[in-house]
Amino acid sequence: MTDLSKSQQEHRDMSNAIAALSMDAVEKANSGHPGMPMGMADAATVLFSKFLKFDPADPNWADRDRFILSAGHGSMLIYSLLHLTGYEAVTMDQIKNFRQLGSITAGHPEYGHVPGVETTTGPLGQGISNAVGFALAERHLNARYGDDLVDHRTYVIAGDGCLMEGISQEAISLAGHLKLNRLTVLWDDNNITIDGPVSLSDSTIQKKRFEASGWKVIEIDGHDADQVESALSEAQKSDKPTMIACKTAIGKGAPNKEGTNKAHGSPLGADEIAATREARGWSHGAFEIPDDVYEMWKKPGQEGQKAHKEWADRLQNSEHAAEFNRAMSGELNEGWLDKYQAYKDSVAQDKPTMATRVSSNKALGPLTEALTDMISGSADLEGSNKTKTSATSQEIQAGDYAGRYINYGVREHGMAACMNGLALHGGVIPYSGLFMVFMDYCRPSVRLAALMEIQTIYVATHDSIGVGEDGPTHQPVEHLASLRAIPNTFTYRPADALEVAECWELAVRRKIGPSILALTRQNVPAVRDDATKNMCERGGYVLTPGKGADDIVLIASGSEVHLAQEAHEALAEQGVSARVVSMPCLDVFLEQDESYIRSVLGKDLPKIVVEAGIRQGWDALIGRDGGFIGMDSFGASAPGAELFPHFGITTEAIVDMAVKKVKG
Amino acid sequence: MTDLSKSQQEHRDMSNAIAALSMDAVEKANSGHPGMPMGMADAATVLFSKFLKFDPADPNWADRDRFILSAGHGSMLIYSLLHLTGYEAVTMDQIKNFRQLGSITAGHPEYGHVPGVETTTGPLGQGISNAVGFALAERHLNARYGDDLVDHRTYVIAGDGCLMEGISQEAISLAGHLKLNRLTVLWDDNNITIDGPVSLSDSTIQKKRFEASGWKVIEIDGHDADQVESALSEAQKSDKPTMIACKTAIGKGAPNKEGTNKAHGSPLGADEIAATREARGWSHGAFEIPDDVYEMWKKPGQEGQKAHKEWADRLQNSEHAAEFNRAMSGELNEGWLDKYQAYKDSVAQDKPTMATRVSSNKALGPLTEALTDMISGSADLEGSNKTKTSATSQEIQAGDYAGRYINYGVREHGMAACMNGLALHGGVIPYSGLFMVFMDYCRPSVRLAALMEIQTIYVATHDSIGVGEDGPTHQPVEHLASLRAIPNTFTYRPADALEVAECWELAVRRKIGPSILALTRQNVPAVRDDATKNMCERGGYVLTPGKGADDIVLIASGSEVHLAQEAHEALAEQGVSARVVSMPCLDVFLEQDESYIRSVLGKDLPKIVVEAGIRQGWDALIGRDGGFIGMDSFGASAPGAELFPHFGITTEAIVDMAVKKVKG
Repeated sequence: MTDLSKSQQEHRDMSNAIAALSMDAVEKANSGHPGMPMGMADAATVLFSKFLKFDPADPNWADRDRFILSAGHGSMLIYSLLHLTGYEAVTMDQIKNFRQLGSITAGHPEYGHVPGVETTTGPLGQGISNAVGFALAERHLNARYGDDLVDHRTYVIAGDGCLMEGISQEAISLAGHLKLNRLTVLWDDNNITIDGPVSLSDSTIQKKRFEASGWKVIEIDGHDADQVESALSEAQKSDKPTMIACKTAIGKGAPNKEGTNKAHGSPLGADEIAATREARGWSHGAFEIPDDVYEMWKKPGQEGQKAHKEWADRLQNSEHAAEFNRAMSGELNEGWLDKYQAYKDSVAQDKPTMATRVSSNKALGPLTEALTDMISGSADLEGSNKTKTSATSQEIQAGDYAGRYINYGVREHGMAACMNGLALHGGVIPYSGLFMVFMDYCRPSVRLAALMEIQTIYVATHDSIGVGEDGPTHQPVEHLASLRAIPNTFTYRPADALEVAECWELAVRRKIGPSILALTRQNVPAVRDDATKNMCERGGYVLTPGKGADDIVLIASGSEVHLAQEAHEALAEQGVSARVVSMPCLDVFLEQDESYIRSVLGKDLPKIVVEAGIRQGWDALIGRDGGFIGMDSFGASAPGAELFPHFGITTEAIVDMAVKKVKG
Repeated sequence: MTDLSKSQQEHRDMSNAIAALSMDAVEKANSGHPGMPMGMADAATVLFSKFLKFDPADPNWADRDRFILSAGHGSMLIYSLLHLTGYEAVTMDQIKNFRQLGSITAGHPEYGHVPGVETTTGPLGQGISNAVGFALAERHLNARYGDDLVDHRTYVIAGDGCLMEGISQEAISLAGHLKLNRLTVLWDDNNITIDGPVSLSDSTIQKKRFEASGWKVIEIDGHDADQVESALSEAQKSDKPTMIACKTAIGKGAPNKEGTNKAHGSPLGADEIAATREARGWSHGAFEIPDDVYEMWKKPGQEGQKAHKEWADRLQNSEHAAEFNRAMSGELNEGWLDKYQAYKDSVAQDKPTMATRVSSNKALGPLTEALTDMISGSADLEGSNKTKTSATSQEIQAGDYAGRYINYGVREHGMAACMNGLALHGGVIPYSGLFMVFMDYCRPSVRLAALMEIQTIYVATHDSIGVGEDGPTHQPVEHLASLRAIPNTFTYRPADALEVAECWELAVRRKIGPSILALTRQNVPAVRDDATKNMCERGGYVLTPGKGADDIVLIASGSEVHLAQEAHEALAEQGVSARVVSMPCLDVFLEQDESYIRSVLGKDLPKIVVEAGIRQGWDALIGRDGGFIGMDSFGASAPGAELFPHFGITTEAIVDMAVKKVKG
């Protein structure tokens, strides 16, 4: 610790401030992860003080560099950095109230709670995978709006856990393929996971693995500021994404816990903290930061403010200013709905019989033309999902990011996390396709989108046993229920081309959470012919009133609505008046006021739900006494048209059950 | 095609038989994937005729080699092989009825439908990840029962899609770490995915990637039988798992479609099929296999039968015979329940206050001692999940597979798929731990376990907002509902140490599907003191009758049961008689007969459900009018004890709601 140069002393003090705040906050909360912030304090200090472009006074500055703490358990690292660099919201009181009710300094960094936190992390592997979306959004917007307005980088700190999660492979292979060279990952190579040394469970040569995926890899001592600086400089010149393997000691400076899993996930204890202060050469009390250290930490933000000001001048003079600001604000292009209404009217008139995945493609035509921020894609199922339109036909490729279609490959989870990153970056609206059954593969990322309240849209085609011959592995049965279960997630299951158009309208307007469109493989007839009002807006509505005073209510979604319609006719012949309710979005319907719900479902009428999925969730409308025609097992492999009768999902079954319920 | 040696001619005919059956069956079904079986027919012919050890007369022979078609869409490859090699169930009629209702030749190979299909595949990446479990089970059982009884290999055919899925990284890094050298993956390196050339979405250097994960890699021409044979021979000598990159042409021999995505997922068409017959030198009609080709294909099975007979002799003379047969049959060790009853009795007497994850560990003590097939593990959370016991404390390591604890690493999805492989192999009962919120990461594998009706057990700890400070990213809210939604999956949420013991008993006895134990991080008091009968067996039961004629029923699960108990007391003081129902497994309860359900829930009594999760699912018991005290949003970061009142999940809230319901 002797004979340090002034800059070395400064680095030590700045790094110590992070480490001290981290161990003090965890100690006070009696909960948290001190080891990682202590181990990565050196690297983070260099990154934030010499490279990262940011303006603490405007955390949402569009051209800031993005910093993503993929190893989210080390949240005190980012809270310390935000506090020290002058983000006003992150006060010392917030640091002291780490992990307490009502504080913004949650256990894991949460987007929307803390200015400067770009994405919610904690579930491992998500941050590094979001980062691909951030880096891709940057290149895409750069291609559209030019260097003057969009010219920033994405930095990630990831741990061993992030790299062991499979999603990280999807992310790094996509980033490498697309040559996202403005993406830099600092790997906290501390050789420790929760259960002990990494060698308990892994022997991967990460350098070789990343190189195999098209990355540049630099290996350094993560505690040597000069090495960190030179690696970050080198990364800036790379034509590939760069992984900097920072060899570090977890809990750096803690005499009895450094380098072990004991430093990972619990407070160090008063004695160990005192000894660590001693070892690291930091003589200040708990939560005490000397003014001169605050001064050092203010400089990078001041540099950023200058850059921000220059950028603001460029923006003011840019021909793209209005459009750029609109896109970044998340506002939809002016006049889009007028054009779209014309499309809806034409569908109402044509009443086409077609698969809803096909009508989705038709709706996407005028939508993607009008809504220029929409970025399409598919997890290697473009021909099935039909997400590509003429406006989005140009494909994004390595070195050419102007297109609006992303070939995500067979990477559903990586795709979903990338979409989160795209949405979080701003300026684009990501939507993409996959088989609905594989929503299971990307569920953790969908959940995070819901938690973060960001807009992502899933085109989930092949939504039932209607999949047919591919069989039960490819047939969603429980997926409507399990997706509806995620808070703040809307699952739409439109019945025909017009409902598809209406649900798409709702999905693009929904800025505060993910939307999923569940769409058929097979043809379905039109059930409505009037596009005056978006009937899907309240989740469910009376599609066809009974003929006479209603005896029973038939509630259906998607491909089963036309069965209910047919049953309505057949029942009328038997003197039974059946009301048909179309329920394209149960999530939304359950949020309506009681009087609307009552107006749709009637009072004390017997009810039957028809949906080619499981019953779970529908009892909220029909209770134990309600009738249900759907699935209670996995599907089977056979032509789709044979499977519906095989599993008893037919017009006749509805009629029989209705007659029994009404006539007893 | 001229001047072929006899063995070359034989190879060509055998390979052509596969290709022809594949394209003919897909054509007749007018659905399916001909390209992959045609491209891999050469490699598969060499594997099955010269390496694979199997006995078509006894597809379940314990010491057979396992063959896993990870690229499950190429199902006609395996159906062709099973038919040609003489598996009786796979008749030519079954081939002709490919993908039809009631046939065993489903669109994707389904375990349990077809003898010789070792695991259900189709969802990409699953088969290669199951294979790690197969290969690990083999080494473990070899360590226990010796070379005489257990000495086989696991072969996989995987495609580009399998390798792009993140789960494959988890699988190959685990296999490489454990040096599972009896695992051989043949990669169908055909450069094609559904949307087109792999280069649309991926540039991974797979050789380097696998080497980085500790694999041996051999690159060959997948159509050159000699190269395939020499690579497979080399693999047998490797001290690492081996990946053989087979450069192939998808749809080999189809003049207009070979090497393109047009050969992937739809029938070739009559003209193209005729031209392919010509090009491949196969002059026989559709579904026509000449006797001499059948003869050639019968030989490998005959070799296998000899080996099987020798093995049976060894088994007969083995000291391990009885134990080995018991384990492989899936029967539990004799007398286990007697010993376990003693444990349950002691718990009933002690009435400990403890976290259910801790009482799970206590129950596992006597269980793992008595049930010697149980293999433990955790996704890097042993200290939290508490899955290790003294009987399972020895860890499985590279080269030493005798232990009963697997360090799965931060790989929930790979772990779940590995557990499926372990269970499918037989001889072991896999159980393992993870944070419950991360059940989302492994959901696709859980679903397959349910579909395959195999036994895997998840120790899902930290099951609610009781997680506390780690916050909403780590707090399950919708997970109880979403897990209950999966058909044939039982989610147990025991209330105290005794219910934990009972649920564990049910889970180890449940051989036909996955069980999940949802367990608390936080302490909970005991709610029962009588272990005479396993009360959890029917899913729910009356824990405490009302004091007097019942006014209301309080239904709760897990950590909320004691709140209902407290409310019962408080209500009694107000003259309200509340029955308390404990509902450790809603899945099981809903399967009970109506009279039992009625006996537990009463007739027309008002009801309140208390569970620190979402309402979805519970309406099946309580309908729209029922009361619910639980969550309707994501959680928050704060000490767990503060979060329950914060979200209104308290005894007082139950009492208030109950009084309102009863007294109006």
